[in-house]
Amino acid sequence: MGSLPPLDAPLPLGPEAFLDESRPVIDFLNGYYRDIESYPVRPDAEPGWLRTLLPDVPPEHGDPVEAILEDVQQHIIPGLTHWQSPNFFAYFPANGSAAGLMGDMLTSGLNVVPFSWASSPAATELESVVVDWMCKLLGLPDRFLFSCGGRGVLHGSTCEGVVSTLAAARDRALRSLGHEGIVRLVVYASDQSHATFQKGTSIIGIPPANFRIIPTSASSGYGLTADSVYDAVEADIASGLVPLYLCATIGTTGVGAVDPVRGLGEVARRYCMWLHVDVAFAGSALICPEFRDCINGAELADSVSMNPHKWFLTNMDCCCLWVANPQVLTSALSTNPEYLNNIGKGGTEVIDYKDWQIALSRPFRAMKLWVVLHRYGAAGMRAHIRRHVEMAKWFERMVRADERFEVVTPRSFSLVTFRLRPQNELEDEISVDALNRKLLVAINTSGRAFMTHFVVDNKFVIRMAMGGAMTQMRHVRDAWKLVKEKAKEVGAFPREYAQVREMN
Amino acid sequence: MGSLPPLDAPLPLGPEAFLDESRPVIDFLNGYYRDIESYPVRPDAEPGWLRTLLPDVPPEHGDPVEAILEDVQQHIIPGLTHWQSPNFFAYFPANGSAAGLMGDMLTSGLNVVPFSWASSPAATELESVVVDWMCKLLGLPDRFLFSCGGRGVLHGSTCEGVVSTLAAARDRALRSLGHEGIVRLVVYASDQSHATFQKGTSIIGIPPANFRIIPTSASSGYGLTADSVYDAVEADIASGLVPLYLCATIGTTGVGAVDPVRGLGEVARRYCMWLHVDVAFAGSALICPEFRDCINGAELADSVSMNPHKWFLTNMDCCCLWVANPQVLTSALSTNPEYLNNIGKGGTEVIDYKDWQIALSRPFRAMKLWVVLHRYGAAGMRAHIRRHVEMAKWFERMVRADERFEVVTPRSFSLVTFRLRPQNELEDEISVDALNRKLLVAINTSGRAFMTHFVVDNKFVIRMAMGGAMTQMRHVRDAWKLVKEKAKEVGAFPREYAQVREMN
Repeated sequence: MGSLPPLDAPLPLGPEAFLDESRPVIDFLNGYYRDIESYPVRPDAEPGWLRTLLPDVPPEHGDPVEAILEDVQQHIIPGLTHWQSPNFFAYFPANGSAAGLMGDMLTSGLNVVPFSWASSPAATELESVVVDWMCKLLGLPDRFLFSCGGRGVLHGSTCEGVVSTLAAARDRALRSLGHEGIVRLVVYASDQSHATFQKGTSIIGIPPANFRIIPTSASSGYGLTADSVYDAVEADIASGLVPLYLCATIGTTGVGAVDPVRGLGEVARRYCMWLHVDVAFAGSALICPEFRDCINGAELADSVSMNPHKWFLTNMDCCCLWVANPQVLTSALSTNPEYLNNIGKGGTEVIDYKDWQIALSRPFRAMKLWVVLHRYGAAGMRAHIRRHVEMAKWFERMVRADERFEVVTPRSFSLVTFRLRPQNELEDEISVDALNRKLLVAINTSGRAFMTHFVVDNKFVIRMAMGGAMTQMRHVRDAWKLVKEKAKEVGAFPREYAQVREMN
Repeated sequence: MGSLPPLDAPLPLGPEAFLDESRPVIDFLNGYYRDIESYPVRPDAEPGWLRTLLPDVPPEHGDPVEAILEDVQQHIIPGLTHWQSPNFFAYFPANGSAAGLMGDMLTSGLNVVPFSWASSPAATELESVVVDWMCKLLGLPDRFLFSCGGRGVLHGSTCEGVVSTLAAARDRALRSLGHEGIVRLVVYASDQSHATFQKGTSIIGIPPANFRIIPTSASSGYGLTADSVYDAVEADIASGLVPLYLCATIGTTGVGAVDPVRGLGEVARRYCMWLHVDVAFAGSALICPEFRDCINGAELADSVSMNPHKWFLTNMDCCCLWVANPQVLTSALSTNPEYLNNIGKGGTEVIDYKDWQIALSRPFRAMKLWVVLHRYGAAGMRAHIRRHVEMAKWFERMVRADERFEVVTPRSFSLVTFRLRPQNELEDEISVDALNRKLLVAINTSGRAFMTHFVVDNKFVIRMAMGGAMTQMRHVRDAWKLVKEKAKEVGAFPREYAQVREMN
């Protein structure tokens, strides 16, 4: 055995260590935000480069904070994709905020583990209050409120919510079918639904072949129609299968499509399917009454999930899941090992959130969401959302006004999809796609913006997703300028044509 | 629609907002750590009290940081169980540190989403380096190293690692059995294994009846014997079932039991079962060579999980999972939706960690673990571990030296289990249990320490788990004094007897 350590050595946590260590980090992050526009949004990194820069083994002796921050600056920053850059328009945003970071600091600093009510009562109580606040703010049906028997929980990701609700629906169904029935259960989603539903279905043990991907089309704005679900369900029932779970999405990842919740809810009710409504991204917009029509019919849903870590200024990770009937969820996910039993208060009268999720342990996520709401207020959050939607409208107008481009699918909240359009009837889709791919690579290689793509109706489209906390109109204007500049560079237009256009 | 927001309003993230908002939080947390010993470790809270103190809806207009921190102080702090208190000896520790918090600040502040290599290359690269560092530091077999074809990933919890590896093992087995075979698969654990294995087994769709809880006994130190697994497996095979997955634990939650990994590994190999070794808590101790014997045979494991968020100074949440054959894992968990496909670098040559876990999105957890290792170094971490083990040895000696008490199971790393012993042969176990329950309630109600309990061999035992970052010898001495004081108060000893003892 090694030499005995001093039992009262300086503590790795405590007032002195903490003050000394945290201030330089604040200054570092302050500098990061100040300089963030000077970094390429997406780095030009080679796979494996960082491994060659770092030692093979951890240091034997610790280094001061300053040395660590120097390493972050030298080795890590140049290899990051800067999600907080005002020029990040890729995927969906994962915007953070000063309040979100403040909340994370409190979460991490208090570092409590609220797996049960008793293991940190205020954390569980705050969570149940803040998910009610969110439910009201989004205009979700009362049935998801604590006072109406429904309830919410904070997970780390939509996928965790999906796996949890799928497991709940499965176990409820298997109580009458018997466990062998698991191979007969069917889950329905659209070709626009997030991959998380397919993955979740596999994780909970339903045969991959029983995941139905129902096609959508431009005629319904790529929304999943109730009729198409009805047809698929009837065909499955005729084959001896059992409909289990239907996924509806408000604001799909590819093009922001909106599924008709009421129609889907009616089909789900008819066949006793669990209806889950995924508003991961667009849920943030529901706080503005003018965007709330799309949630009509949500009273037919069994569960709804929404990600504050996308467009709601809440730093990673945070997902709200509401369920109308918590008992179905907890009966699938409860455990009661002796070492967690509480000798004292608690018990059946309180929420033990370990029984509402996959894991037992969990961070105090409610803190950061509460701090965000407390700091910006409902009015501040609505202004934040409307600002990005206005930016998207401006970008959409620019694209529509330029006949070299086209808006491919209707703007959805703050997401615009566009592409270089075919220049004449002879140009085939394959070469148009190739040109748009080249355009996207050119945009991203410039480091001045980062966008991603999707393929819809066999068309390659570029996605411009607004939502960064630091994004201002000037960044959106610059992005549009960049698109036109790179389109010219990749030879998108006949030379003369382009010149004429640029003069306008 | 409401009034249009100013498109260039002050940003919710940015250098100015960030500096202004974060400094008061630092000061707040500094005060929290300074005062933490003055709070009852476990609050005297009534279910529902917080809901009555907070408004029903989020505020319409935001509040300044100072008002929010005042609310935290008034409403949240009094209702927390203070996991960072030096007098917290319950469950297992979830210790944090200045470096862990610093890492969390960087994670939250940079707020990147490394679901794929391309979505933030440095984050993925750092994760693959830091899990290699941890593998070497713990003395795990080379087969889990990147260079040997194995690899690690950071999850949020052991349960996520268990669900992921169970799904991998299941899918591998079902490729030959057919999906109907899911009802024949069997998972083996001991009566000391963490509840997460039972929960994970249900989540992935294996019938709950196929989860085997194999009894352990004092004769093996409550470790799971290879013989008992062998017998259970043979009986299941005779019934037409298929052994799938075996859970071994180093340092169980109840009493810190250590399963014989090599023996279990040999049984697992013989029956082609997946062997998972859970070193959630005790894994931290493996960084000290003198505690490393227990991992002998880990080269027979398919996966190993360990929680830096328990005893490794890494704030919630962080779990290392290593797998020997990543392809089995990724073939169960991969998705390739178009919107995540990378146009550019990446692809097959890099790790996309979304395919190593349940969720698609994920925080940059590698940052905080790397900062902890960088800040304290291997030597600092070993000193930290040895300090707590020494404290536990001292506590164990005190209990053994006092004949009114007994150490019920052998001390395991920094965990001691003890109880008031029966005072004579006539005293039955039921009344001894009742007395020990009263003792635990009295200890915890005092607010001066928080311990939890377990039941082993039908005996109610009190668990004293050392590991708090702020815990010093004086706290452990005070805890022992408190135990004796409360034992007297609950009438544990005949009056005269107690007086005689106290004079010694």
